[in-house]
Amino acid sequence: MEYRKIKDQENYEDVSQNDIESLHGKPLSGVVSNSTPSSLGGSTKSSWKLKSIVTLALTLLTSSQAILIVWSKRAGKYEYSVTTANFSVEALKCALSLVALAKIWRSQGVTEDNKLSTSFDEVSVYPIPAILYLIKNLLQYYIFAYVDAPAYQILKNLNIISTGVLYRIILKKKLSEIQWAAFILLCAGCTTAQLNPSSDHVLQTPFQGWVMAIIMALLSGFAGVYTEAIIKKRPSRNINVQNFWLYIFGMIFNLIAIIVQDYDEVMNKGFFHGYSFITVCMILNHALSGIAVSMVMKYADNIVKVYSTSVAMLLTAVVSVFLFGFHLSLAFFLGSTVVSVSIYLHSIGKPQPQK
Amino acid sequence: MEYRKIKDQENYEDVSQNDIESLHGKPLSGVVSNSTPSSLGGSTKSSWKLKSIVTLALTLLTSSQAILIVWSKRAGKYEYSVTTANFSVEALKCALSLVALAKIWRSQGVTEDNKLSTSFDEVSVYPIPAILYLIKNLLQYYIFAYVDAPAYQILKNLNIISTGVLYRIILKKKLSEIQWAAFILLCAGCTTAQLNPSSDHVLQTPFQGWVMAIIMALLSGFAGVYTEAIIKKRPSRNINVQNFWLYIFGMIFNLIAIIVQDYDEVMNKGFFHGYSFITVCMILNHALSGIAVSMVMKYADNIVKVYSTSVAMLLTAVVSVFLFGFHLSLAFFLGSTVVSVSIYLHSIGKPQPQK
Repeated sequence: MEYRKIKDQENYEDVSQNDIESLHGKPLSGVVSNSTPSSLGGSTKSSWKLKSIVTLALTLLTSSQAILIVWSKRAGKYEYSVTTANFSVEALKCALSLVALAKIWRSQGVTEDNKLSTSFDEVSVYPIPAILYLIKNLLQYYIFAYVDAPAYQILKNLNIISTGVLYRIILKKKLSEIQWAAFILLCAGCTTAQLNPSSDHVLQTPFQGWVMAIIMALLSGFAGVYTEAIIKKRPSRNINVQNFWLYIFGMIFNLIAIIVQDYDEVMNKGFFHGYSFITVCMILNHALSGIAVSMVMKYADNIVKVYSTSVAMLLTAVVSVFLFGFHLSLAFFLGSTVVSVSIYLHSIGKPQPQK
Repeated sequence: MEYRKIKDQENYEDVSQNDIESLHGKPLSGVVSNSTPSSLGGSTKSSWKLKSIVTLALTLLTSSQAILIVWSKRAGKYEYSVTTANFSVEALKCALSLVALAKIWRSQGVTEDNKLSTSFDEVSVYPIPAILYLIKNLLQYYIFAYVDAPAYQILKNLNIISTGVLYRIILKKKLSEIQWAAFILLCAGCTTAQLNPSSDHVLQTPFQGWVMAIIMALLSGFAGVYTEAIIKKRPSRNINVQNFWLYIFGMIFNLIAIIVQDYDEVMNKGFFHGYSFITVCMILNHALSGIAVSMVMKYADNIVKVYSTSVAMLLTAVVSVFLFGFHLSLAFFLGSTVVSVSIYLHSIGKPQPQK
């Protein structure tokens, strides 16, 4: 199929999902693997600090990602292949995971938890998130028959709700009533912040459009929650090994996508045709965000991830005011207020042990 | 000054405030004074029931009020004098209070709590809410030099915050952290529900406009909270007596307004010039809502009143879809969701006794 089609309207928000898609991660290398080597692969007393660092990293990387996209749009259109870019992201993440592992092997030696070799039992579930995202991305081509781009932006906020529901059902983790209320508010607040004069189109979405949007939200939520389940199943296993195996499958699936969609293009024009400095920046950023998502899954959870990417969305808008002279709407302020209250409620609403 | 000037854009929301303005009330006569006579003037075991009834009454009356205004707009312009209509509302409320009192005297006899005569000490504070509203209404003429009508609609939601803050400071009643969060959400949700393409004007409001809007919100919040303080100061005093005295001052202040603003008009054209069937309906509705506000102050509080009028605003919009073929925007659904969550949080977030 064609180069870069729905990338523009797509990426801004989906950034974090794209990265889970090929779920794997290496721990912001220097920071984590050197300064707190003991905390890798298990929860220690510094887990709160680690959780904060990875959450902050995810937030900053996701918001700078969206800014890179705006910047690249301004710099003119780019004609690189989305599938080769996605493959490059996976390959880079794989490489970074190996570099981090090499460091750890040198300092700690090869142990049961950080050895690269694995059992079929361990590795067999790793392709599942990648497959789920593949299905979701295929559906994405069809949903535009029923829903226009601004409406799709709005509908994607359903991901927030689906993640919360599946997190509860699959991981069996309990959110308190207040945290549920906070999660509904997060969804409403994010949607409000994105309101623009054409948002009301979403109310004309036909039934099929709603069904597809809900299925896509469930697929995306399920992939995220399932990844967390995989990573958390073996808490002592080194995150870099887990990431390596996740990313290997990401590479395989993206390779298939290149062959199916862009084989002729790549053969005629070359793999890196149309790549610019900004393309490289975006690939680097995607790779680091993907790793940050994995780290959040390991040391925090999907709920933290959703909050983190929501805050990143607001942060991007504020930074865009200074960088690109964007205007903030009243809806943005109202949505941000609701999101802020939601974060506050989530933090004070921790489930009581006696419940 | 001229007839009916800013009534159209003004009344829709300010309805409840206008009624507090001349704060007084008679207890939905039959319902309260006959069926639960023992509960009048004090808190009994049926207080929860009473609280629910008056809150429901206020909600329904306020929402039907807004619908009457839309209906009257559709029916063509009306040329009655706002000051004479306000006076009529006060007079009607006074009359209804006296009718209710007469019934009570007949069934229970005249007691210390339900006698009409009063001390200077008791009655001296009753004109204060009316004076506060008079100042606020005068300011209203000037704020339009800085703020346009849609922006003013948005800014009036500051009343919610000012009521919460003054309720805390003046009545020294504690809201829990969750209830504060809920109150911020109520303000954000109501504003979101009212968003329309011209709402962003509010962001261009000059500094003087903000100052005036804040002062008006404080005056309005203060009048509401002060009325509650007056009514609750003597819990055993019959509400109809309290209302009678409040409304007497409402009549006096509105009489002054007629003389200052509309003396010539009334002299030339007559007091009831331009009154139509719908004018009479609106006066009746205003009078009953005013009484409902008083009842909410007596048996519930300002917080309940704010929630009640917010829900009425949403209810009006929904009913208008069926009555007038209005369209609901996505912003309306999002705002309604936030308001609903806010109500839920307010109810579960009651302050803990140990705090």
